[in-house]
Amino acid sequence: MKRKLEKRLKQIKGCLMNKAVPELTKLLKDSHPADLAEILNHLRKEERRALLDRLNPEEAAQVLPEMDSGSREELLESLEDTLLSRILEVMPTDNAADILRDLPEERERHILELMKKEEAEDVNQLLKYDEDTAGGIMTPDFFALQGNMNVEEAIEKLRKSDIESISYIYVVDDKGHLAGVLSLKKLITAPGTTSLKEIMDTEVIRVTTDIDQEEVANLVRKYDLRALPVVDLTNTLVGRITVDDVLDVIEEEANEDIYKMAGTDEEEMLDRSIFRVARIRLPWLITTLLGTIISASIIMAFKKIRIDAQTLIGLLAFVPAITAMGGNIGIQSSTIVVRGLATGRIDLQHLWRVLFREIRIGALMGLACGFIVGGIARLWQGEAIIGLIVAVSMFTAITVAATIGTLAPLALKRFKIDPAVAAGPFVTTSNDITGLLIYFSLTAWLLSLVR
Amino acid sequence: MKRKLEKRLKQIKGCLMNKAVPELTKLLKDSHPADLAEILNHLRKEERRALLDRLNPEEAAQVLPEMDSGSREELLESLEDTLLSRILEVMPTDNAADILRDLPEERERHILELMKKEEAEDVNQLLKYDEDTAGGIMTPDFFALQGNMNVEEAIEKLRKSDIESISYIYVVDDKGHLAGVLSLKKLITAPGTTSLKEIMDTEVIRVTTDIDQEEVANLVRKYDLRALPVVDLTNTLVGRITVDDVLDVIEEEANEDIYKMAGTDEEEMLDRSIFRVARIRLPWLITTLLGTIISASIIMAFKKIRIDAQTLIGLLAFVPAITAMGGNIGIQSSTIVVRGLATGRIDLQHLWRVLFREIRIGALMGLACGFIVGGIARLWQGEAIIGLIVAVSMFTAITVAATIGTLAPLALKRFKIDPAVAAGPFVTTSNDITGLLIYFSLTAWLLSLVR
Repeated sequence: MKRKLEKRLKQIKGCLMNKAVPELTKLLKDSHPADLAEILNHLRKEERRALLDRLNPEEAAQVLPEMDSGSREELLESLEDTLLSRILEVMPTDNAADILRDLPEERERHILELMKKEEAEDVNQLLKYDEDTAGGIMTPDFFALQGNMNVEEAIEKLRKSDIESISYIYVVDDKGHLAGVLSLKKLITAPGTTSLKEIMDTEVIRVTTDIDQEEVANLVRKYDLRALPVVDLTNTLVGRITVDDVLDVIEEEANEDIYKMAGTDEEEMLDRSIFRVARIRLPWLITTLLGTIISASIIMAFKKIRIDAQTLIGLLAFVPAITAMGGNIGIQSSTIVVRGLATGRIDLQHLWRVLFREIRIGALMGLACGFIVGGIARLWQGEAIIGLIVAVSMFTAITVAATIGTLAPLALKRFKIDPAVAAGPFVTTSNDITGLLIYFSLTAWLLSLVR
Repeated sequence: MKRKLEKRLKQIKGCLMNKAVPELTKLLKDSHPADLAEILNHLRKEERRALLDRLNPEEAAQVLPEMDSGSREELLESLEDTLLSRILEVMPTDNAADILRDLPEERERHILELMKKEEAEDVNQLLKYDEDTAGGIMTPDFFALQGNMNVEEAIEKLRKSDIESISYIYVVDDKGHLAGVLSLKKLITAPGTTSLKEIMDTEVIRVTTDIDQEEVANLVRKYDLRALPVVDLTNTLVGRITVDDVLDVIEEEANEDIYKMAGTDEEEMLDRSIFRVARIRLPWLITTLLGTIISASIIMAFKKIRIDAQTLIGLLAFVPAITAMGGNIGIQSSTIVVRGLATGRIDLQHLWRVLFREIRIGALMGLACGFIVGGIARLWQGEAIIGLIVAVSMFTAITVAATIGTLAPLALKRFKIDPAVAAGPFVTTSNDITGLLIYFSLTAWLLSLVR
């Protein structure tokens, strides 16, 4: 939090405590909705409600969408359904839908019933779409005109429109089918009597409502768009996605990948209860834990190889080396693939190319690491065979780890499971187990050769 | 790559092979610059050059900035300095600066000399800024007017301006100091005789040139801006940052975090040589490797505890459990902190709150995991003391891992080192070592108690 905002937070807290209403009202009027949202995030539960009661529905409608979803949820729980429905009525439709989506179904229905019919219908329309798709992030408020209108008439229409943040004018035919696009700048620059048809760009980059939001973000980024029109299957314009929604999508998708790779979830940042956070993380940890029991039984199997206790401990000393290196290489390969898939840099068509590349990189690093660790083992443990076993195992384990790390996310993607899941504890645990299996088998085999 | 683009790529490759110039020219004219850039990324070196020779400088200036930096670098190496200077002259100044920044210093200077004086000076101005700051990502092409101008005159000026993608009109005083801002929509909506001063918003969100690009991105995202004005220390308007630059920054920063956490670098996606990729990853791997040698010597120290070989192997079997669980928890905590710092959700002022929270979560999970693994060890190994040692060690190792995982990125941030570095191999390796130290010490201590 910036110092200026920190100061305002203190002032507001003071006013709330002393019930200094006129002062508080002035402070709120002077604050940007996004700042108020941040202040609300930092207030206690009762303070939040007290502050919200000092905002009119229009102001509240601007502030609520900017809050952290965890704090907002708490605040919404304390609001009466009638008050919330008044606020949602004046909120941009897409934000209203987002908020309703997070409510219990029962309450969502009740609030929709309380809302003005027209607004409720608009919101309901959006609620039909999956929230991770173009339909789920679009707003149905767009500015569309017919192609036979001229520039002067279009500007007149624009003047009367109450849609905020217009970047493009969409041109539609009489059935509402998207036919062209025109930037605001181009509209103003053209002579007044030109028809829109003449100056519009007919190669409109558009998406249908079912397109995944990640793909939407990649399109907006690639073509440097400030808004992207959304059409239904009949090419009828149904909404637009603005670039500020895309900013949120990119950040959200990156966070999702990062948190999944660590075996946790963005949710936990928003949750104040450490028990619930532990519950989010535990499934992955318990899975890992069970994996390590398999690792333990592989180590127990070393007992069956007939070697003296000295040599055995000398070999077991390198277990962390094998597992840590395999784990690291596996995470590197899977990170490259997960991010490559998310940003569109890697696609499934080039699966083999990616795989062979990662295997070769893995083998190269396995060679380097095997050589180093084998040398150290040889010098330290005094037995040549330990050096050899460690070196060969390290090389093999690293190469296999790179292969698993690359294949796991690609396979998940093919089966339409989020590949990010693969890049975390899953790959590390699998690589621990395969690394130890390799180590154990090579030990048994190489020792049987020399004896 | 989309199927449509894949098809176009094949057509273009065919034309290049058959030297079908008119066909090729038509294909190029029909393609969006961003698509051409993607096609260029997928071509071979000689094909790239041949294709570029079919574009005029204006077209090339639109395509080059959209290419992957790895492929672009290869292409630029094959271009004559005079040709490149012609292209850079007609390129948006910020893109030209980005491209020049990547060239060897000698060549950069030579090309600047070849460019038209005016353009070269503009670019040179931008090259002074650090590329990760507001100055480094801004464009000096903005649309600014004086406050005493009226709406009609402003629209007339706008018509004559050749600046693309105008979202806001900045209002400056006669010395160029930023005084207000006005959306394009608001300008068109206002009566023609109103002066800009009357309708402008004076609370302009702005940054100075030295602000870090991550902070710029957070501002644009928080306030849903389509462009952000950049001022120097005297509040003179010197540039603006458009939202498409911010999209790239968010993606870039997220990738940077993700790759660093895996102990690698985005660079490697752009590099075709597996040797260079291995060189990027090896430093981290070797560091990890040396860490595992410390782990190995801790395991060797187990020899000094006087227990029978059976019990010793029974204990060593749980080494992967201790290291894997510590590693996972450490990565979870540090991921939460790294992302929290990057997105502004965590700041250094709340250091203690974050730390205690993560420690409590760690302890909670340590309790659960210690209980489970201790129970398994007890049942499996038949010795109560092994169960106890494993359980207590697991609990302690996990709690300590959560502490290290949280503290490491916070400490790095305080010393102005990128915290993402901490969330990768560094934390895993430290946690391997501390986990084993805890395991060894507790074993020695608990065994001494029962004997």
